[in-house]
Amino acid sequence: MLPVKMCISASAASRIIFQCLRFYCQKPPKKLRICEAVSSSDMGTNVKVQGWVRSVRHQKQNLFLHVNDGSSLQSLQVVASSQLNHRLLTFGSAVEVSGLLVKSPSRRQEVELQANQIHVVGECNPVDFPFKVKERHDLEYIRQFPHLRCRTNTFSSLLRIRSEATTAIQLYFRDKGYVQVHTPVITSNDCEGAGELFQVEPFFSVPAYLVVSGQLHLEVIAGAFPGVFSFGPTFRAENSQSRRHLAEFFMVEAEISFTQSLEDLMKVMEEMFRSTTEHLLAQCPEDVALFHKHVTPGHNWGCDLQTEHEKYLVKHCGNIPLFVTDYPYTLKPFYARDNLDKPLHTVAAVDLLVPGVGELCGGTLREERLDLLKTRLALAGLDETYRWYLDLRRFGSVPHGGFGMGFERYLQCVLGVDNIRDVIPFPRYSHSCLL
Amino acid sequence: MLPVKMCISASAASRIIFQCLRFYCQKPPKKLRICEAVSSSDMGTNVKVQGWVRSVRHQKQNLFLHVNDGSSLQSLQVVASSQLNHRLLTFGSAVEVSGLLVKSPSRRQEVELQANQIHVVGECNPVDFPFKVKERHDLEYIRQFPHLRCRTNTFSSLLRIRSEATTAIQLYFRDKGYVQVHTPVITSNDCEGAGELFQVEPFFSVPAYLVVSGQLHLEVIAGAFPGVFSFGPTFRAENSQSRRHLAEFFMVEAEISFTQSLEDLMKVMEEMFRSTTEHLLAQCPEDVALFHKHVTPGHNWGCDLQTEHEKYLVKHCGNIPLFVTDYPYTLKPFYARDNLDKPLHTVAAVDLLVPGVGELCGGTLREERLDLLKTRLALAGLDETYRWYLDLRRFGSVPHGGFGMGFERYLQCVLGVDNIRDVIPFPRYSHSCLL
Repeated sequence: MLPVKMCISASAASRIIFQCLRFYCQKPPKKLRICEAVSSSDMGTNVKVQGWVRSVRHQKQNLFLHVNDGSSLQSLQVVASSQLNHRLLTFGSAVEVSGLLVKSPSRRQEVELQANQIHVVGECNPVDFPFKVKERHDLEYIRQFPHLRCRTNTFSSLLRIRSEATTAIQLYFRDKGYVQVHTPVITSNDCEGAGELFQVEPFFSVPAYLVVSGQLHLEVIAGAFPGVFSFGPTFRAENSQSRRHLAEFFMVEAEISFTQSLEDLMKVMEEMFRSTTEHLLAQCPEDVALFHKHVTPGHNWGCDLQTEHEKYLVKHCGNIPLFVTDYPYTLKPFYARDNLDKPLHTVAAVDLLVPGVGELCGGTLREERLDLLKTRLALAGLDETYRWYLDLRRFGSVPHGGFGMGFERYLQCVLGVDNIRDVIPFPRYSHSCLL
Repeated sequence: MLPVKMCISASAASRIIFQCLRFYCQKPPKKLRICEAVSSSDMGTNVKVQGWVRSVRHQKQNLFLHVNDGSSLQSLQVVASSQLNHRLLTFGSAVEVSGLLVKSPSRRQEVELQANQIHVVGECNPVDFPFKVKERHDLEYIRQFPHLRCRTNTFSSLLRIRSEATTAIQLYFRDKGYVQVHTPVITSNDCEGAGELFQVEPFFSVPAYLVVSGQLHLEVIAGAFPGVFSFGPTFRAENSQSRRHLAEFFMVEAEISFTQSLEDLMKVMEEMFRSTTEHLLAQCPEDVALFHKHVTPGHNWGCDLQTEHEKYLVKHCGNIPLFVTDYPYTLKPFYARDNLDKPLHTVAAVDLLVPGVGELCGGTLREERLDLLKTRLALAGLDETYRWYLDLRRFGSVPHGGFGMGFERYLQCVLGVDNIRDVIPFPRYSHSCLL
C-alpha cells in the first residue's frame, strides 16, 4: 500500500521552498485530520492527510483539490503541480496527500497544502457514482442511496450533529446526577397499548415484542435512584408513510423520583432542550448553519401532516414551543396519575408541542398510590399481568414522574428538516428496510 | 403529601441545639442528595433528604436509620428522638427526613442528620419484601426479582458502574474524534451468518431480523469519516444457558478508516479498555471495591464454560489478557481481509482474550479490494445480496478495519462477575424474558 513516490515540480515552487521540502521530507510527515490541518498555525510543517476528493480543478500549471475526511464540514485546499494529476483523481475518490502546510494566498481559506505527493487510494468512477461534483442534491434524492449518502456534505453534517446531540443529552443528565439505564429492546410487556407492536419469533416461552417505550423498566430502576434516564431505539409497527413517523426511532426517556408536580417535569424537558441545543450551536456551528442556510432556507414551519389541533395550538400561541397539561383521564394509559378532579376528570400529563413537528415530548406523573392503581388495572383486567408493577408501589413507593422525547423529532425541530427519514442513518418504515 | 409535623424531643438535644433548630426551621430546609449530604462540610445546615431505609435501630431514647437514595453506595445516618419512631418505618420503606446536618460522634462516618421530622412516603411490608435487613443475599437469589433487585446495594452499585462505563466509552471515542453512529436494530441483512437470527414479523416487504452486529452499517459510514463507533443492543437467538451468553446484549463497535495493520486495531482496543477502566476506578471506587471485596472475593479466574482453547491460551500466558491474530481464511466471514499467505491461508483477524471471560473483543481488517471481495462473495452466492456492500469498494474505497467488544463481558471482566445475567438490568436468554 506504499504510494509511488513522485517528483516535485520545480516550476511549482521557488528554490527556497524546494530546499525546505527536501529537508522536511526526510522526516516522516505528520499525519493530520483535515479539521486539524485547516485550523493549524504551523506553517511550513510537512504533513500527510487522508480523505475523499470533493472537487478537482485544473489550471495551466496547477492542480487544485478539495479534500474532506468527515472530521469537519470544511475541506482542505490542496495545490499541486499539474504533473501530479492522474486520471483516477476524480470527485469521490479516496486520496492520501503529503506536502507542506502554507498560508493560503486566497481569502477563502487560511491554510492550504502544497502537495509533493498524491496517492489515489480508492478510485471512484464519476459516471456510476450517484452524486455529481458541485451539484447540490436534495435530501429526497440522496435518500435513495442509504449506503452512500454519508458522502454528501449535508448528510455528513447531519451525522456529526446527531453524534454531538447524543453526547450533549448524556452529559446533561450525567451532570444532574442521573444514572443511565440500558432498558431492553425485547420485552414481554405490551406496555401501554400505546402503539402497534412488532412481535418477535417464539424463543422466550412467552410472547415477546420490540419495546415501544422503556418507561416501565425505567420506573423499576427509579425505585432506587433519584433520577434515571435511557437513550435508545424504540419501535412502532404503524403502517405510516408520514414525514414524522418511523418504525424504529430513538427516544430519550427520563424518570424522576420524589417528584410531585408537572412543573418539575417541564423544567427538565426545557433544560434538556436548551442545554442540548446550546451544546450543538457551540460544538458544530458550521454544520447547523449548513442546514439553516442551504437545506431548509425557506422552511415553512407548521405544514401538513401533524394533527390539526397541535397545529392550531402552536400557531395560536405565536409559533413557539408550548406545554399542554392535564389530559382527560380516559385518554391516557393506566399509569398516569389521577388528578381526582371529577367531573372534568383528568390525569397529570404534559406534552411539549413545537412548531413544525408537533408533539416532541410527552410525560406524566405516575400513579404511585397502590389502591388507585390496583383498581384501575383490575378494571382493565390487567392486574395479574402487572403484578410486578404493583409490587413497585407495594414496597417503598414514592411519587415520581417522567417523560420521553423523540430524538429524531428533536433534530427535525432544531434543524428545520421536513422529513424524519433525513435525520437518521438507516430509516425503517412501512415497506422499507434497506440494508 | 405534606408530612405531619412532629415535635422536637427536648431530651434529644441540648438547649442550644434546640434554639438553632427553631431558627433554621423557619427557613425551608435545603434539599440534598445523600451523596451531597454525606460529603457536606456545612455543619448546622437545615436539610431535607429523601430515600429508602436500609436499616432501623432503636435505643432507649434514640432511633438510628440509614437512608440511601442511590446517588452513592454510602447511606446517611439519621439520628432522631425515639418519639419520631413509627410502625411504618421499616427496612425498604421510602422516607423524607428533615433536620440538622451535624458532625458525627462515631468514627464510622463524618456526618449525620439530627432529624426533627421523618415522613414515611411509601411503606414496605418487611414480611413480603424479598430482601431482608442486614442479610447479604447472593446474586443468584436477587436475580429472581428483576423488578426489585436494584434496591440492593450490590445491584445499585452495578447500575452506577454500568452508567459510568457507558459514559467513559463514549468520552474515549469522542476525545479521539470518532463520530457516534446509531446503527439500526432491525435489518434486512443477515450479516455474517455469525449467529442465530431473531426474525421480526412481516412488515417491511422483505424478511427482517434483529441485528447481530452493526459492523456493515458502520462500514457504510466509515466511508466518509476517519473513525466511527456505535454502542447499542445486538441479538443472538442462541439456545444457550451459558454464564457468558445473552439473547440481547450491548456491543461497542468501532470502525477506523485508512488503517492498514492489526496493530492499529489492537492499540484502540487496549486504549479503550484502559481508559474506561481508569475512569471507573476514579469515578466509582467504592462501587468497584464492593464487587472486589464482597461479591466476588475468591473469584476463580478461568473456570468452566469458556472454550478449552481460550482457557488454555490465557492460562499458558500467565492469566493476563492476550491477543490472538491471523485466523484461518475459511473460518472467518467474507469481509475479513485476505493475508494472501497460502498455503497456510489466513485473514487479518484479531481476538482479545481475557481471563475468566474468554473472547472480549474480535476484529478484522476488512477486505477493501473490490476484485478479491467480489470473487469471495460470488463463490458464496452472495454477490447480488451484497451489491450495496461492493459499491462501498467501488466508490472511494479505503483500507479500514474495526472490532466489537461485548459490553457485559467487559463488566464481567473488570468486576469479576461470574454470570453475565448479573451485569445487565433486564437479562434476556433462552426461555426467559421477564418484564
